[in-house]
Amino acid sequence: MPPVAARILFAAASLSCLLAQPRYSADGQLTLPADYREWTFLSSGLGMTYSAHMRDSPAFTNVFVNPAAYRSFIASGKWPDKTMLVLEIRASASKGSINQGGSYQSDVLAVEAEVKDSAKFPDNAWAFFAFGKSSAGTLVPRTEDCYACHAEHAAVDNTFVQFYPVLLEIAKQKGTLTGNR
Amino acid sequence: MPPVAARILFAAASLSCLLAQPRYSADGQLTLPADYREWTFLSSGLGMTYSAHMRDSPAFTNVFVNPAAYRSFIASGKWPDKTMLVLEIRASASKGSINQGGSYQSDVLAVEAEVKDSAKFPDNAWAFFAFGKSSAGTLVPRTEDCYACHAEHAAVDNTFVQFYPVLLEIAKQKGTLTGNR
Repeated sequence: MPPVAARILFAAASLSCLLAQPRYSADGQLTLPADYREWTFLSSGLGMTYSAHMRDSPAFTNVFVNPAAYRSFIASGKWPDKTMLVLEIRASASKGSINQGGSYQSDVLAVEAEVKDSAKFPDNAWAFFAFGKSSAGTLVPRTEDCYACHAEHAAVDNTFVQFYPVLLEIAKQKGTLTGNR
Repeated sequence: MPPVAARILFAAASLSCLLAQPRYSADGQLTLPADYREWTFLSSGLGMTYSAHMRDSPAFTNVFVNPAAYRSFIASGKWPDKTMLVLEIRASASKGSINQGGSYQSDVLAVEAEVKDSAKFPDNAWAFFAFGKSSAGTLVPRTEDCYACHAEHAAVDNTFVQFYPVLLEIAKQKGTLTGNR
């Protein structure tokens, strides 16, 4: 076990996870949560694409959610207000060290986020932000395809729970699956 | 934000993460931590293999570590005693819902764990356990190849940090990289 001081620091960091909610700059940019890598992991894909054409350099896509929203989903099959999902896109590598085939993750290529914030976005609580490699995320315009596609095809409340196996089971149990999946 | 009762439950759950350490049954089996999916995610691979032959059905490999050990590594580049890494092996799927290419994760195929427990294993603090689909993990015999391979090729203290990009940067900064990588 770590010493007492480390436990206190750990408890404080856990508390910051508990209190995580979307924070915006004065000009409306979303601040990338510094600790999103310690949020709850939902799943990872490799080279996922809407089109039949495979990319030459498939990327890994890791999805994290703030822990309080995760626990709420496990209990109810629904996302609470202030839910934040972070999509981390990483390059893939293949041959390295003892690995001779398949793919593992390397550098961050870009980060995106989807937040549910009914006070900030009263018309449609969900909004998308693109960070690139910055810590400030720009709101994706409402005219972009991602909004319509999530609204129509996402398994639960604008989120692609069909690709998050743990949550998919919960949504089935709780009867919260929706959308033209 | 969740109501007060939810916050209390959340704080209790966070505390259980803080206190996570290896627990064994009377016959020496390792108990699978019920909340390992809420531990800190290190990385994920797809179809990673030691041999040049690709598998027909590549599997995803998600690695989680207990949060206290993660924070300790971030601070020092080293693993503390009672570190637990959980390897979750999941089947991959490709065409489903809106996805037309690449791979996403589906059912759990097996779970394995690597623990550092100097009181339990005084000769070599690290030990491997195989759970299959059970919640009880059987100690992998010391004669198995995994012990020698981790000892020789792991980037930091018997763990393949070369495949965990966030930790790899930390280990470089802290000068804790070792092994014939």
